[in-house]
This record gives sequence, C-alpha cells and structure tokens, in this order.
Amino acid sequence: MKIRIDIEYDGTDYCGWQSQPGQRSIQGTIQDALGQHLGEKIAVFGASRTDSGVHARGQVAHFDVDDTVPLMNWSAVLNDRLPRNIRVLRALPVESDFDAQRGAKSKLYTYRLNNRPVDSAMDRYAAFYPEPFDWDKIRSCLPLFVGRKDFKSFQSAGTKIKTTVRQIYRFELFEEGNRTYRFELEGSGFLKQMVRNIIGTVLFVGAGKLDIADITKIFEARDRRCAGPTALARGLCLERIDYSGSLNS
Amino acid sequence: MKIRIDIEYDGTDYCGWQSQPGQRSIQGTIQDALGQHLGEKIAVFGASRTDSGVHARGQVAHFDVDDTVPLMNWSAVLNDRLPRNIRVLRALPVESDFDAQRGAKSKLYTYRLNNRPVDSAMDRYAAFYPEPFDWDKIRSCLPLFVGRKDFKSFQSAGTKIKTTVRQIYRFELFEEGNRTYRFELEGSGFLKQMVRNIIGTVLFVGAGKLDIADITKIFEARDRRCAGPTALARGLCLERIDYSGSLNS
Repeated sequence: MKIRIDIEYDGTDYCGWQSQPGQRSIQGTIQDALGQHLGEKIAVFGASRTDSGVHARGQVAHFDVDDTVPLMNWSAVLNDRLPRNIRVLRALPVESDFDAQRGAKSKLYTYRLNNRPVDSAMDRYAAFYPEPFDWDKIRSCLPLFVGRKDFKSFQSAGTKIKTTVRQIYRFELFEEGNRTYRFELEGSGFLKQMVRNIIGTVLFVGAGKLDIADITKIFEARDRRCAGPTALARGLCLERIDYSGSLNS
Repeated sequence: MKIRIDIEYDGTDYCGWQSQPGQRSIQGTIQDALGQHLGEKIAVFGASRTDSGVHARGQVAHFDVDDTVPLMNWSAVLNDRLPRNIRVLRALPVESDFDAQRGAKSKLYTYRLNNRPVDSAMDRYAAFYPEPFDWDKIRSCLPLFVGRKDFKSFQSAGTKIKTTVRQIYRFELFEEGNRTYRFELEGSGFLKQMVRNIIGTVLFVGAGKLDIADITKIFEARDRRCAGPTALARGLCLERIDYSGSLNS
C-alpha cells in the first residue's frame, strides 16, 4: 500500500531533505522513524530536495508498505518517533501510481527576510539582510521572471537534468510589517537553488548592484555567473505542493 | 552612566531571565557578554523575571558603566558577543534614576497557542493544546479578569511581596488563522506565573472543567489551588513595557 505524507519541518539543523552519509537529513530522520516502527528500512521519496537550512510547511513524500501491514494512523506513529522540528501533518493511503515528485503540478515557495538594523532573536524563518534596498525597484523586476523561460542562469551546479526551462506562475512581494518582507514564488518546478538564486538577483537589483535591464541579459546569457548570489537558506520555505488533476490532491 | 537596553529573546533553551548557578540564563548571558567587553563583571537589571522557556520581544534592562567608559554603540557591542537567540534591539543612555523594573508603568504579554490536531514544527512560540475548546466561553470570561483585583489565587508560590493586588487594563483573544490563537494581556504588573495561571484557568473553562461562574469564586478564595493549572511556558512572550510619563520611554 502506498502512503502519502505531508510534512512540516524546521530545516535549521538539518543538511537538507536528502539523506547523506554521516549527516542528519529530513529524509533520513523520517526513514529512521518508519524503520523503528516497521522493523525494516523503507525508502521515503520526497517531492522536493530542499537544501540545508531550508524549511517546509508543505513538503510531500510517499512510501510503500507491504499489504500485510495493518491500516494505521501513520501521522501519529511517525510523530511519536520524530523530533519536534519535523511533524507529519497528515498521512493518507493513495493510488499505487501516486508519485510525490513526478506528480507535482506546482510548488509554492516563500522567501522571508528581515530588513531591520538588528537581527531578530525569534524569527528563525527570515533571513537577515540589514542593508538598505530599493523595494520599488525590486517589485518592478518581479514580472520579468514570470512565464515559461529558460532558467539556466539561475541554476546552481550539481544536478544533471534534461531541460532548464521552467514555468513561473506568480512572483509577488508582500510587506509583513516591521520591515519584514515576504516573496511568494509559484511555479511548475524549480532547478537546484533556483529560488534562492532568483532572490539573490532581485536583491542585487534592490541594492543597486544590478539594473532592471540586466535581468533580460542574465536570462539570455544562460550562465550562472551572470546572476546575483544565492540568497541565504534561512528565509526559504516550501509552503505547498499541488497535485491538481490527480485523485490524490 | 546608565544604559537602557531593549532585548528580544527566544527563551526555549534558557532557565529564564534570572541568573542561577550552573544554569544558562538570559541575564547571565548578557552579563557575560558585557563582562567580556569591559573586562569586569557588571550587573544587568531586568524589568521582568521571565520564567524558563518564556520569550520576549520587549524585555527592558539597565546597567551602569563607569563614566570613564567611552560612548559606544552598546547594541552592536553586545550583539557581537551574544548568541543569536538573544538580540539587543536598541541601547540608549538614560537618566541616572531610570529603573527598568520599578519604572515600568505597564507590561504587555501575549500567549499563543496552537489548537490543531498536530503540533507545528515551525512555530516555537505557540504552546500546543490539541484538545477541543469552547472559544466563545473562553472569550466571555476574559472581562472578569480586567480591573484592579486581588490576584492571589493566580500567584505561584515562591516570592514574597507586599500586595497581590494588580491592575489588568486589557485581556483580549485573537484568532490568527489556522487554529492558532493569541491572548493579549496588559497590566500594571504581574505576580509570579500570573499570566500562565490565568491562561490555564480560562483554558479550563474552555475545556468544560470550570464554569464561568467559578471565576468569581476563585478570586474570592485567594488560594492558588482553586484556579486552573499553569499553562505551558512556550506560548508566553513579554511583548512590550511602557515607561510613559518618564523621559526614558
């Protein structure tokens, strides 16, 4: 039987979603919890390989258990064995062809940042960027990222993939108050560190280190070195994954 | 010269504000940072002795430095030496008669709680109470706590004080969405664990373990054992202290 789980986590103290030898990963921690319960190790497949320090309120994963395993409340079973900074929000049996990664139709990421002069002791989910930004300039370059585009310049090295074309549906900026800003970025899928590379680029525009006109040139260059730096992991959160059109959404 | 500092902290990993031998306190950590800079230990006096696990966005403290110490940016000096979960939001020289504790005219506390079936991995500042509550009933008993009253029944043992009469200016409940609730409680001052004992009592009303009519009886009894339990520390935050009427507010 295939089980879908929806997961929230504070990624601060993890090496990211993916298991890595000798490191504490979200995937490994969930696999360990599941293994403890079942007495055998079972693979858990996540929709997004979030990086070290990146958070999630809506990661989705799946795993297969033998049909002899009785029906149970998987979220309670896992939450009993997981550390408090990983919570299974819900668990449900899904069709055997459900695939958390390949079935995803769109993903919503948020990127939050604190633009005050002093970092916050209590907001672990906002990156700290005290420098002055021209927020109007930042806002005006967001539409340049929306649509079906080749995001090669915004892809960090390290993964081989067929195409670097992705579709961004929405890219908005909100002011939460007290100089905390939140970007929302929704798209069909994202390349390695693409959200953070886009955020780093628009912040460079806001800091006057790039012009709005440079954005088009960066897209055309298809070269990571032309875009801005990778924004800090701390502000990034995978909020939601949609599987619309699927019975399992 | 007397310096006032406004402090934000995540109290999760601390034994509370007050220094205690062999334990990690907020006060002790700030005193250590100051001592490292000055080369001698100086006492830092806080307005509120927040408990273990209680947070602050607006704690206020003061300390005296010798007049030979040059003027400096105390928040930068301290933040450089403090762990990330304690931040000095601002520091300013004040009149020599400023006293962070005795000068406080009112304090605002918030108490946040998560009433969803599963705890949040990312909200460290909301206590987790998954049981069903009658929120209308809770809301209707809040006015019974407002005014000048003897809060003896809501005082935990352990401190000797002259009077248990305090004045509550405001006690409100807000729904933040996604079944997260926030109480706001503003008053002239608070007895030991008074906010958490009040919250524990109104939650008992919401859970049907006490009636609204019992509140008046609890006040009259002047006996801690009549009130509800002390609510979990995790949801409590000292938001703001007002020194109005003072030049230093």
